[in-house]
Amino acid sequence: MALLFLSEADPVEPWRAALLAEMPDLDIRVWPDQVGDPGDIDVAFVWKPPPGELARYPNLRAILSLGAGIDALIQDDTLPDLPLARMVDPSMTSTMADYILLSVLRHHRHFDLFEREQRAGRWTFVLPKRPEERTVGILGLGELGAAAATRLLDHGFNVRGWSRSKKTIKGVQSFHGQGQLDNFLEAAEILVCLLPLTADTEGILNAALFAALPKGACLINAARGGHLKEIDLLDALENGQLSAATLDVFETEPPPATSPLWLHERVLMTPHVASYCSPQTAAKGVVENIKRALSGKPLRNLVDRNRGY
Amino acid sequence: MALLFLSEADPVEPWRAALLAEMPDLDIRVWPDQVGDPGDIDVAFVWKPPPGELARYPNLRAILSLGAGIDALIQDDTLPDLPLARMVDPSMTSTMADYILLSVLRHHRHFDLFEREQRAGRWTFVLPKRPEERTVGILGLGELGAAAATRLLDHGFNVRGWSRSKKTIKGVQSFHGQGQLDNFLEAAEILVCLLPLTADTEGILNAALFAALPKGACLINAARGGHLKEIDLLDALENGQLSAATLDVFETEPPPATSPLWLHERVLMTPHVASYCSPQTAAKGVVENIKRALSGKPLRNLVDRNRGY
Repeated sequence: MALLFLSEADPVEPWRAALLAEMPDLDIRVWPDQVGDPGDIDVAFVWKPPPGELARYPNLRAILSLGAGIDALIQDDTLPDLPLARMVDPSMTSTMADYILLSVLRHHRHFDLFEREQRAGRWTFVLPKRPEERTVGILGLGELGAAAATRLLDHGFNVRGWSRSKKTIKGVQSFHGQGQLDNFLEAAEILVCLLPLTADTEGILNAALFAALPKGACLINAARGGHLKEIDLLDALENGQLSAATLDVFETEPPPATSPLWLHERVLMTPHVASYCSPQTAAKGVVENIKRALSGKPLRNLVDRNRGY
Repeated sequence: MALLFLSEADPVEPWRAALLAEMPDLDIRVWPDQVGDPGDIDVAFVWKPPPGELARYPNLRAILSLGAGIDALIQDDTLPDLPLARMVDPSMTSTMADYILLSVLRHHRHFDLFEREQRAGRWTFVLPKRPEERTVGILGLGELGAAAATRLLDHGFNVRGWSRSKKTIKGVQSFHGQGQLDNFLEAAEILVCLLPLTADTEGILNAALFAALPKGACLINAARGGHLKEIDLLDALENGQLSAATLDVFETEPPPATSPLWLHERVLMTPHVASYCSPQTAAKGVVENIKRALSGKPLRNLVDRNRGY
């Protein structure tokens, strides 16, 4: 039994310590230098492997993602047709919910405006609203979207959510399917995107969607850069349909130096930090899935490749 | 029975509607044009009256403050020696707790850094910490400090508090008196000031206090401008003892155009918006105190003028 660890973004040592604490005899092979015989590898634990790489392991039985989003993985046509699991972890969920709450509060309490006004040397008083007077809409009610919705609800906001198929979360006004999208959008003063990136959701944050929001709405995208048509965002900020945006994800990360987002005074860019998976809290679930893969049981948090998440 | 309403900051109409809803026969006299006979006034409901003004009402029985802080009132030597009550109101407390949570999360999740880095065209990843890994210190555990402490605690932060006299709040590590101030400060990575402004606390946010904090700490002042020695703040930001500050209050509001705070990239200025008192929620308590004043009962939220709050 050997586990392939492959990520250019995650340091291996915290993972090694956390995984061995749960499964002391685990044989961890670190890509690219410590792989050994590719035939030894049973399970791959990966973040953005080079296309074609996972096809090199003849005895691979399962693929576990280091991230919640698996869009980059399934875009690889050579990816072996094996069970694939996304990452679900309490630390990842709670860091995301914190990021969303922070970003929503920042728009809700006009800190984005105050930052601009300060730099312009202006003292602009705006009466604070209470969270009960503000409606936040969440696109996507999976693990992360549901956690964010609950956090915002606990904080007193009016929360509505939209998902592909019907979801029920206590206290959240739920909408689903293309037919209910405009109804969902029409009251979303702050819109949060936590959708999976699929063929259906690519480019969903576009001019038509922005036009269905209340005038002056704010956008928070913590899902994938591919959800957003940046040119449409820039237009909507220019014509006032949107008043501000918080972006944690981008088509290219970091965005090119020529991107107009860098100096846009109504856009806050954060460097893909919304969610963080802590090896300490996540290792138990990873080891559970390694054991399931070895014994042929269905993986937890299994991806439906046809659905795309 | 007549109530004097005196504020240059608060519009009277929302207060008139809310107070009359609780006490339909209340005779409200609006300063300066609709006062009528000064001898009619029984109770004054005020925010920053001109010094000497309240001495003009011979039959005044009580003074109710429109704000939580009454420092400006008791600095007036001519203020009649009558029962004085500060404002305590659920909306004021919860808007303050929201402001503190937002400001703490903003520093905790490095949004202050990301804003600077974005403007410099830099993508600087910083691993997010969990709230459990962060200690927030609160100076002042009165109504507002206690509410902020509880909000931060509910959010998972380690919270410690300091007050003049001993206070106990479940889950908050409490310190009191000058003798325990340095012990309190030594672990406060984010320091929040919610003290009353008194002779003892004026200028408390100074170089000596900053030096007792962990290197690189953040400061949030939502109390009074008089608590802060701005020159010491600028020095501490310059030498790295503090890494950032959020200021909602200033010696002069708005600060003069020459203030170096306006363009300081490590300072966020907000225009005295941390706390907001909603007439709808506060009117009940104000009317209760008007009735108490008229019947000679002790006021709720009575100020101890010797103590200064």
